[in-house]
Amino acid sequence: MPLNITQKLIKDHLVSGKMEPGIEIGLKIDQTLTQDATGTLVMLELEAMELERAKTEASAQYVDHNLIQVDSKNPDDHLFLHSATRRFGLYHSRPGNGVSHPVHMQRLAKPGKTLLGSDSHTCANGCMGMLAMGAGGIDVALAIAGEPFYVKMPEVWGIKLTGELPDWVSAKDMILELLRKHDVKGGVGRVIEYYGPGLKHLSAMDRHVIANMGAELGATGTVFPSDKEIKRFLKEQGREDDWIELVADKGATYDIDEELNLSEVEPMIAKPSSPGNVVPVAEVAGTPIYQSYIGSSANPGFRDFAVAAEIVKDRHIADGVSFDINPTSRQMLTDLVKESHIASMLQAGGRMHQAGCNGCIGMGQAPASGRNSLRTTPRNFPGRSGTKEDSVYLCGPETAAVSALTGVITDPRTMDIDYPKVKDPKNPTVDENLLDKPLPYEEAKNVTLHKGPNIASIPKMDEMPDQIEIPVLLKMSDNISTDEILAGGARVLPFRSNLPEISKFTFEIIDDTYYKRGKETVEKGGHAIIGGFNYGQGSSREHAALAPRYLGLRVALVKDFARIHWQNLVNFGVLPLTFVNEEDYDLLMQGDILEATDLRAKVSGGNEFTISVKGKNHQIKVRHTLSERQTEIMLKGGIINWVKDRKIKS
Amino acid sequence: MPLNITQKLIKDHLVSGKMEPGIEIGLKIDQTLTQDATGTLVMLELEAMELERAKTEASAQYVDHNLIQVDSKNPDDHLFLHSATRRFGLYHSRPGNGVSHPVHMQRLAKPGKTLLGSDSHTCANGCMGMLAMGAGGIDVALAIAGEPFYVKMPEVWGIKLTGELPDWVSAKDMILELLRKHDVKGGVGRVIEYYGPGLKHLSAMDRHVIANMGAELGATGTVFPSDKEIKRFLKEQGREDDWIELVADKGATYDIDEELNLSEVEPMIAKPSSPGNVVPVAEVAGTPIYQSYIGSSANPGFRDFAVAAEIVKDRHIADGVSFDINPTSRQMLTDLVKESHIASMLQAGGRMHQAGCNGCIGMGQAPASGRNSLRTTPRNFPGRSGTKEDSVYLCGPETAAVSALTGVITDPRTMDIDYPKVKDPKNPTVDENLLDKPLPYEEAKNVTLHKGPNIASIPKMDEMPDQIEIPVLLKMSDNISTDEILAGGARVLPFRSNLPEISKFTFEIIDDTYYKRGKETVEKGGHAIIGGFNYGQGSSREHAALAPRYLGLRVALVKDFARIHWQNLVNFGVLPLTFVNEEDYDLLMQGDILEATDLRAKVSGGNEFTISVKGKNHQIKVRHTLSERQTEIMLKGGIINWVKDRKIKS
Repeated sequence: MPLNITQKLIKDHLVSGKMEPGIEIGLKIDQTLTQDATGTLVMLELEAMELERAKTEASAQYVDHNLIQVDSKNPDDHLFLHSATRRFGLYHSRPGNGVSHPVHMQRLAKPGKTLLGSDSHTCANGCMGMLAMGAGGIDVALAIAGEPFYVKMPEVWGIKLTGELPDWVSAKDMILELLRKHDVKGGVGRVIEYYGPGLKHLSAMDRHVIANMGAELGATGTVFPSDKEIKRFLKEQGREDDWIELVADKGATYDIDEELNLSEVEPMIAKPSSPGNVVPVAEVAGTPIYQSYIGSSANPGFRDFAVAAEIVKDRHIADGVSFDINPTSRQMLTDLVKESHIASMLQAGGRMHQAGCNGCIGMGQAPASGRNSLRTTPRNFPGRSGTKEDSVYLCGPETAAVSALTGVITDPRTMDIDYPKVKDPKNPTVDENLLDKPLPYEEAKNVTLHKGPNIASIPKMDEMPDQIEIPVLLKMSDNISTDEILAGGARVLPFRSNLPEISKFTFEIIDDTYYKRGKETVEKGGHAIIGGFNYGQGSSREHAALAPRYLGLRVALVKDFARIHWQNLVNFGVLPLTFVNEEDYDLLMQGDILEATDLRAKVSGGNEFTISVKGKNHQIKVRHTLSERQTEIMLKGGIINWVKDRKIKS
Repeated sequence: MPLNITQKLIKDHLVSGKMEPGIEIGLKIDQTLTQDATGTLVMLELEAMELERAKTEASAQYVDHNLIQVDSKNPDDHLFLHSATRRFGLYHSRPGNGVSHPVHMQRLAKPGKTLLGSDSHTCANGCMGMLAMGAGGIDVALAIAGEPFYVKMPEVWGIKLTGELPDWVSAKDMILELLRKHDVKGGVGRVIEYYGPGLKHLSAMDRHVIANMGAELGATGTVFPSDKEIKRFLKEQGREDDWIELVADKGATYDIDEELNLSEVEPMIAKPSSPGNVVPVAEVAGTPIYQSYIGSSANPGFRDFAVAAEIVKDRHIADGVSFDINPTSRQMLTDLVKESHIASMLQAGGRMHQAGCNGCIGMGQAPASGRNSLRTTPRNFPGRSGTKEDSVYLCGPETAAVSALTGVITDPRTMDIDYPKVKDPKNPTVDENLLDKPLPYEEAKNVTLHKGPNIASIPKMDEMPDQIEIPVLLKMSDNISTDEILAGGARVLPFRSNLPEISKFTFEIIDDTYYKRGKETVEKGGHAIIGGFNYGQGSSREHAALAPRYLGLRVALVKDFARIHWQNLVNFGVLPLTFVNEEDYDLLMQGDILEATDLRAKVSGGNEFTISVKGKNHQIKVRHTLSERQTEIMLKGGIINWVKDRKIKS
């Protein structure tokens, strides 16, 4: 049967499961990427797993998010990450080297490979003929440890590109046009695969823009072929040997078919506050702006900055506009400097920032209250810019640059300027000076992890006990969110690398005595909590399972679970149970003591069993929905122990 | 009598007082500068004074400190400052345009003029043949409103320079050598005036470095002649017409004499944690560094960056070193880009930051815990970098660049590199694109101040009442600091532009009911506080007087006052009284009601009078030490009312 590229990539990496959309499959992971905001916990997990050395072909840790060093926390994290990459055999991209996605593309991406990253825009490297997917931190830690990644087999959404983008319209406008058509849920459960004659007019970096914002369509991934353009790109990077051709078989089909004529795309813009809220720029032309912001992984290419530079060259930005230039990689910044583009932008009135994620994830460059910000970034969710009730528009660099000159949102086609057709420099800089290669094992094995005062190892956790006699510390109602279990925000998140510290905030909003009461149960066999429907909804943060587990939580008994939090409880060895009879919820009270014997045999022997309440006549029927693999993980006390154990056996 | 330059400048601007060291003199102020951290309050004071238009020759507001925009507070401040400069007829340097001191020097400084700035490094512009001094915000507000600046007539410390700096030694090493000799109090009460044959080898920007760090010697100011070099500099800036010659008269003498042979200066370094803790670099060579930091107003010149760039060109920074490049002005950054110096530093592994104060005042680039940071900045006070218990060394760009390559503190003379002799570019960029000129009055008078949600006007305050019957809300012991009156820090300072909000923290550490109790007295005639010795020691922050005044404080009766807080109380209309008989302190209790009639006549009629305690038989003898001018200010209810009143009368 002729295969499309996505199917080829999956077939080549299939470890378990059937290639039928919706069925869980296990995939071998060749490469991983982590960034510093998620990477510190991943590295602590690798330490807790007692990993000896990364088992992937290439795993890279990028320091690109927390580059604002207002105190020692961020630089201490950087040093910890550096030491961890030295110890575990990872690549390490130092602060100032740039955003993970373009740097990975330039230096490490390889056609035909799988890439898993603890960043939702990991999909950007699908531009290189890879299956590149974002995932949670523990999934990436497992992949680094050599475990497969489990995901539902996606549908493949083939988009045939015809025509050629007109002047003043670039790749960003194209992906915004798709978001206009399909909105932010349009790609859920799908991999988007591009093909057709229109491809030849899209450079590798143009494809990066499009693949990157596949995340905004909700897609599992975006796949482009590895064709002559990718060969050219790799050659430019001094990596021609990494190229293989990867195209769909003749006669390959797709689960969903669509065609897009590039010639018909106009300058597009996403209005506040969703990337799916897209209209033609012309429709909002004249709206005043406070800020024009160039950069991010959604417009990372040399060309994206150069076209903006050519537009503002020998002109001046409008009074009152902050023209923020956020370079995405140091390597590219060097070329932009050498080719005079940075000088053009500075002279026009630009503010140059260091290479990194910066304002795209609210690390600086927040707009003023009640003012409009125009950005080439991928997301404009409410408040993401750092400003409450912000008003952020997303567009391509042409629209952003032209609007910086006029001070209002402007359709670039209406300006009396010739469209600057810029290309990559002839001899682009290749610079690995801040991308440290993995140490040889003989050196790596002696490296000690460097931990600043705010970095603490994940403590050892014991196996699931065979007998429990544990108190119910909290009884909660329906729809408890992970924000109530463990809040996010600037007060709590600085302790993301310090489980003992961050656990102090656990359930604080619901009951600020929980931390103290929980901690007291740790030595006495732990405790349980009772919840209602939709327990653990909201953010996917893993700390919401890890922190209560650290404080002794062994059993979460609820009416039903939100999916991701359930998964996190399993990963960290908290037994997630639901009531067989929902009315039993009413029988239980805070302070009750739950009892069970032969618990290990009960959990592995079937899906339903009974728990009794000490001193009361209640027998509570409970149910779990763990798979065989998950049961094994649960008995071991969580995925860290499970991996450690496999390592010892292997 | 032949005069030195300092004496000439003072004589030309003398409004009151005698030119005898130690005697208070009033000086006409020609120019002012404010920065954004202090400027918002200055602009609110101008608003409260109902100023119609700045009365100086040139007043400039620079946005250079709070450039990290993690939420809307900083950008809202920027917009407020922009609107205030438009309204009051000030220059406005936009965010990204650079640090006040070098930008002012390039675009506005004029030989022969006085400059007062609400930034302690304002003295840097003494390099231009100006009398340039730092002062508190209200002093600068008064200067903008046309009032003289009062200061004690300084001694003039003449330093004769001979010889020429050797290779690998630059202006920073010279001023560090002076700090080694005289430490951080060596310049107190003095203006340092440089002269002699060695001057001809020091460029205008070299002199800026030396004048800037006069602040670290504690000097009132630093004065250089306006000679051919200043003429050359102004010509380069397209401002040759602003040049006048200003040199000491033949036979001029100095109060203190010193000679320094530049040929004998070595590479110098200030060890943690004082700029006066200076030793030759050789003495600490080999100390490992985490960071090498180039920039700040203490090494702001094109040459300072270019020499570092030439040193690291075609080389790589050491593993584990963060090489932070903080440009000081956008105009110079453009030249550094054009002359390939930025490319050299990027390729060596540098992290480029935006033009501004940045890490020099702890706005980013904080070092990791327990690691050494090497900086070309002026100060290494404990914690100033943002990191607690930091370890910051101060040096010149040669030492910083060479050490970035080796990873340890290195005497640059020991490297096998030819000393790069760099000069300013032949046709340096002149760029006023982000320096908005004052609006013509006809436009300015219609401008409305733009106030974001965190900016609040200073409320009107009434005159000093003639009769008081006010409760004692607090009785405090000795040595109460302004940190106890109104704390600094990240929790409180974001409200610096919002008196109603920041006042909520008043005396919070001593008694958290004070805010509520104080607020209740506002409509009832206010209240008093009682203190011991050294009341108001510590930081000079004006909010420590303004916030209690806002909450109704009318009388502060203590054993004695710390000098600056006393001045601030006078400025904001709180009557500062001391006990004539210190043992009367023991008679008073919290809750007592202080009574006085004919208070206005008593205060203006003499220095001592009597206050009674309601319902008790105590007569408390009190004393004030207000001058005639200060008595006038006190009767008006503070300096804002006083200026407003003069404006109406004029």
